[in-house]
Amino acid sequence: MDRLDQQLSFIREIDKLKNIFRRSLITDGTRYENDVEHSWHLAVMVTLLSDYAAEPVDLLRMVKMVLVHDIVEIDAGDTIVYDTNARKEVVQAEQAAADRLFGMLPEDQSSELRVLWDEFEARVTPEARFARALDRLQPIMLNCATDGRTWRENKVTYDRVVALNRPIIEAGAPVLLPFFDQLLLDARENGCFREDE
Amino acid sequence: MDRLDQQLSFIREIDKLKNIFRRSLITDGTRYENDVEHSWHLAVMVTLLSDYAAEPVDLLRMVKMVLVHDIVEIDAGDTIVYDTNARKEVVQAEQAAADRLFGMLPEDQSSELRVLWDEFEARVTPEARFARALDRLQPIMLNCATDGRTWRENKVTYDRVVALNRPIIEAGAPVLLPFFDQLLLDARENGCFREDE
Repeated sequence: MDRLDQQLSFIREIDKLKNIFRRSLITDGTRYENDVEHSWHLAVMVTLLSDYAAEPVDLLRMVKMVLVHDIVEIDAGDTIVYDTNARKEVVQAEQAAADRLFGMLPEDQSSELRVLWDEFEARVTPEARFARALDRLQPIMLNCATDGRTWRENKVTYDRVVALNRPIIEAGAPVLLPFFDQLLLDARENGCFREDE
Repeated sequence: MDRLDQQLSFIREIDKLKNIFRRSLITDGTRYENDVEHSWHLAVMVTLLSDYAAEPVDLLRMVKMVLVHDIVEIDAGDTIVYDTNARKEVVQAEQAAADRLFGMLPEDQSSELRVLWDEFEARVTPEARFARALDRLQPIMLNCATDGRTWRENKVTYDRVVALNRPIIEAGAPVLLPFFDQLLLDARENGCFREDE
């Protein structure tokens, strides 16, 4: 049962993702969300919203992709999307983490999940583009539900949120843009952002 | 965009599942696992282990099933599997919760997820039987990784864990029984259980 041993080792290892915390608060504002919670929420979102994808998508591939899209953060940690310098430095650490973590699995499953992770990072397939769009929308929805507290704490402006996220959402789920635009306009109206300079 | 509004309301509502805590500790023993973390872990498990299912399974159906299998606990709360009296009382509350929560979605998606949830509860399909088997295995793996602390706290014996879980695992994933048996024998050897009386 070598194969099963490898699979169970991976399943045990990824439990650590429950302790990697993000910069978004859960809806009741009591604590930060962790990567596992974000991945589950995103998996439900892609399942329910896949009709809004810009191109036809294979839902099973996409759900697998989002379930594992953040596991490299077990080794590489979470970096906030608005810190673009940190993002560049972290790429190498994430590649090494992908080698180690997906490498724990039997060869066929290791390759399958690594391909999905690479696709997600590079946004080169319809599944990756739609998943990335919702990956941006999910924390924005949480931030709006918690009065933008972590945006204000991290000095993130309305313009910056629009600039960094709108193109990603447009590429994967253009039909959701009116919702995205309105959500952020309402958030600005409600004082969720640091004053723009 | 009535349809989108319904979907987004549901997506916002299920964030509450992140605050429903279970009786298993996460692997490092620092805190209890919540329902969302359990559901994500289970979704990865069914994805990686579906070849061990007793009967052919539709993986996408099964992943959707496990992603939403616990959301009724937003209203009905978590009950420990070893408290069989509490389980009986909670069934009605869970049905009402399923009506309310799945009822937030557009009719087609509401029906689809409700069917999956009913199947899971009744164990009437190959997907439900395999998902239920791993739903039992996942917390057992966590309990074994944390020296059986919550088993001992809840006065759960080795015999009780075998009696309540082995038939469920046998029905859905008989090929995993040798692993299950060995895991529990090792756990008993390591003092994970209250002394049997």
